[in-house]
Amino acid sequence: MGKRIGIDIGGTSIRAALIDEHGNLSGFKKEDTPESPEQGIHMIKTFIGAWLKETSEPVGVAAPGPLNTKTGIFLDPPNLPGWHNFKLKERLEELLEHPCIVENDANAAAVAEFMAGAGKSAESIVYVTISTGVGAGIITGGHLLSGAYSNGGEVGNMIIADNGPSQQGMNIGSWESLASGKALGKRAAEKLQLTGGAPALFEKIEEGSAEAQEIFNEWVDFTARGLANLIHTVDPEVIILGGGVLNKADLILPPLKEALKGKVYASAVDKINLVAAALGGHVGVIGAANLSRVPRL
Amino acid sequence: MGKRIGIDIGGTSIRAALIDEHGNLSGFKKEDTPESPEQGIHMIKTFIGAWLKETSEPVGVAAPGPLNTKTGIFLDPPNLPGWHNFKLKERLEELLEHPCIVENDANAAAVAEFMAGAGKSAESIVYVTISTGVGAGIITGGHLLSGAYSNGGEVGNMIIADNGPSQQGMNIGSWESLASGKALGKRAAEKLQLTGGAPALFEKIEEGSAEAQEIFNEWVDFTARGLANLIHTVDPEVIILGGGVLNKADLILPPLKEALKGKVYASAVDKINLVAAALGGHVGVIGAANLSRVPRL
Repeated sequence: MGKRIGIDIGGTSIRAALIDEHGNLSGFKKEDTPESPEQGIHMIKTFIGAWLKETSEPVGVAAPGPLNTKTGIFLDPPNLPGWHNFKLKERLEELLEHPCIVENDANAAAVAEFMAGAGKSAESIVYVTISTGVGAGIITGGHLLSGAYSNGGEVGNMIIADNGPSQQGMNIGSWESLASGKALGKRAAEKLQLTGGAPALFEKIEEGSAEAQEIFNEWVDFTARGLANLIHTVDPEVIILGGGVLNKADLILPPLKEALKGKVYASAVDKINLVAAALGGHVGVIGAANLSRVPRL
Repeated sequence: MGKRIGIDIGGTSIRAALIDEHGNLSGFKKEDTPESPEQGIHMIKTFIGAWLKETSEPVGVAAPGPLNTKTGIFLDPPNLPGWHNFKLKERLEELLEHPCIVENDANAAAVAEFMAGAGKSAESIVYVTISTGVGAGIITGGHLLSGAYSNGGEVGNMIIADNGPSQQGMNIGSWESLASGKALGKRAAEKLQLTGGAPALFEKIEEGSAEAQEIFNEWVDFTARGLANLIHTVDPEVIILGGGVLNKADLILPPLKEALKGKVYASAVDKINLVAAALGGHVGVIGAANLSRVPRL
């Protein structure tokens, strides 16, 4: 295993990391994401130019979806308005004179947790991120389930209920509209006039508020429906939960696991393995750097 | 490609087929399934003993789940009460002195459609069977998604609604309890006192009954929810529908496709490819005979 480079393009910042032979971060750069993608890729060249001669592996790039990961072309990522339809892979390969692999951020996070985090002893994982939205990355038998149109793991739009708040572009009753971190915060605002989003709700629960607990219990039930649907479809060894909401993993995981037990076949109850993500803020660059080691299907 | 042998163990009958170098059925046997699994495997030996010297490939066996496909041991298939916990693969390999591969029937049907039916030009398919129950087989990038515990594609227990009829061992609001062929027939019996199950309902629709149409429309909506959830999770190139209900494919596919368009991301609408299964009653033996050609994950 040689050195490798990972890039994480986010709505706020672009990060780059050099990972050494032992899997440790031996270089790290970060700057605000420029509005123009051409500026963005030149920033990346400045970050990693000196590292390129140290690696023989493709440069891995994690970026917000929707994204065609085969062609490496952005579609219309809401958090990167100036980058729509940009040919990321092609332009970056020209500029760096080095092969690149592009993957959406949830799948890259799944790769990171699979190779170096909470899934490193498993062969099949589902990584679910719950923050503003809900998304997933699915790795089965050591292969990333990318899907025919790079939409594998877009589980936020999965239908889990008859009704729910309407959300632009999403199904009524979708997992994301009912149980993202944002949805949880909105519910707390409607019912309890809390303005601090999910963190304010968690504070109320810790203070013993029965009303806050009730909102949380509903969220747990909806989240368990989504996770049960993933178990029944892809049957992973481990489910890894990440994203902002999981800052309160101790509060969330025990009731969620109980709720999940009631939603799977009796023979599957003992096999539920629900854990929090192990990697912190560097998950994007670590995943990106490992993309070439997890074959895509 | 040499000759190969496929076995289909069902609740009613055991079938065996020899497939020639061109993929054609060159031998076929069928008898009622005996109560005892030892009698069953001896029946299989009688069926295929003479064919074994013609093949160098493992014998493929399709059988009702739940089934551990790694060990080849039955769990508790409801349609084969005497076969619970039987070590199918081990005993069959001893008796035949030949390697065997065991797979559940929905996955075997997916393999058949992928190799020789409606999915033969695709790389990623989901095969969904809708008859007494609802089940699926998922093939992604040419690999069968078997899952960590052989439960990949057990989508009948997926939660798609808040309420629904209760069904032993299944979730309230599960796809199967709301939209299997049996569920459709039950609904027709409750609302219209029809005793002939789904076929009787289809007859009423063709006669122009508005009440029958309404029951059918509900079924279409629930079925579209399940299929949309599969699209958002595994993103297949083709969805292939099989099972008894699909005898009325001409009646079912057009409204189902319309309903599905309303439940996926705008960018995915044009990519919906929903078709009827192409293989008939021999789907089990054809899938079984092809198991060794589709690697499992």
